[in-house]
Amino acid sequence: MDAKEKLTEAELNARHAEKMKKKEAARKKIEAGKTKEKGLLIVHTGKGKGKTTAAFGMVFRALGQNMRVGVVQFVKGLRQTGERTALEKFGDQVRVYAHGEGFTWETQDREKDIAEARKAWNIAKDMILDDTTDMVLCDELNIVLRYDYLPLEEVLDVLSKRPFMKHVIITGRNARNELIEAADLVTEMELVKHPFRSGIKGQKGIEF
Amino acid sequence: MDAKEKLTEAELNARHAEKMKKKEAARKKIEAGKTKEKGLLIVHTGKGKGKTTAAFGMVFRALGQNMRVGVVQFVKGLRQTGERTALEKFGDQVRVYAHGEGFTWETQDREKDIAEARKAWNIAKDMILDDTTDMVLCDELNIVLRYDYLPLEEVLDVLSKRPFMKHVIITGRNARNELIEAADLVTEMELVKHPFRSGIKGQKGIEF
Repeated sequence: MDAKEKLTEAELNARHAEKMKKKEAARKKIEAGKTKEKGLLIVHTGKGKGKTTAAFGMVFRALGQNMRVGVVQFVKGLRQTGERTALEKFGDQVRVYAHGEGFTWETQDREKDIAEARKAWNIAKDMILDDTTDMVLCDELNIVLRYDYLPLEEVLDVLSKRPFMKHVIITGRNARNELIEAADLVTEMELVKHPFRSGIKGQKGIEF
Repeated sequence: MDAKEKLTEAELNARHAEKMKKKEAARKKIEAGKTKEKGLLIVHTGKGKGKTTAAFGMVFRALGQNMRVGVVQFVKGLRQTGERTALEKFGDQVRVYAHGEGFTWETQDREKDIAEARKAWNIAKDMILDDTTDMVLCDELNIVLRYDYLPLEEVLDVLSKRPFMKHVIITGRNARNELIEAADLVTEMELVKHPFRSGIKGQKGIEF
């Protein structure tokens, strides 16, 4: 018989209150040490789903806080996705630049991809360095950096020169180590289970 | 000297086109096998950030697709967060129920927490079983299940009886194994680097 089962509900409640009290005290202590504010460099990487989705969650959160947001999609275009329609609700608060060609393996044209990456980066660079945008999402920039379509040094240099309170989110698999080192917050999305493996196709509201 | 460096730009481009062509063919083959549509049970777990944020990204994507969404927050309330304000842009398309008390260690009252969990679950249950909601987010339900505030069997039973096309997203650390088994898509958010460790506090547009 489990020791837990011998306790009465009243004892369980008392233990719980004691445990939670300690937990709250610990949390408050940690909170007290957190006093700094700064623009964060955030990286979402890993093979799992949710990298771009979590970045869009942050974009909508920031829009809800009346912040101004820039979105640059380096690889796949937003086209007629749910995000695009939802972003339109926020009018001028958000600026979107979407790479027109879709996935890189659809073009099979390296020079064109490099030119497109440069075009998108020039727009992202302006948003990262200006004084009017609060948050910039560089969606799938990691892919572009991995293929060496843009010089990593240039990207790191621009990031380091951004205004103090500017938040930048970079997504995509295989984030470069130098970028991870420069980042304030890195989350790796790990795939545990994926429906595509069981023949389920990309669905409205889930993948697009 | 690296073999890659000996190649001319033209050779690099040709190799790239060949590689991408193969990649596209492989992708098309996989896509062709994906024919099914069904409501997915999606779980975001792990110690990293982005679990709730990615879920809200899906919520906004679905709203952008004119889907009807229900959001039930089991642990922390939405209060004056960016998500809340952003959700309000979508009017009746979204229904939100937020637990009023905030984090469980703030209450230190187990019986009250159990009663609140039950109240929130009854609302979520209706949304999961009805014919009018397309997607339901049960935010931090994993925490509630981990503390045994709700019977896991009841939750799994309700999930199994949901309409065929209903998507349900469940977030929170320490997802129960039985839930992971029942899920179609599971992503584990792994923490690689966190700004709180360097004394940076929760910021507008990032954490709330």
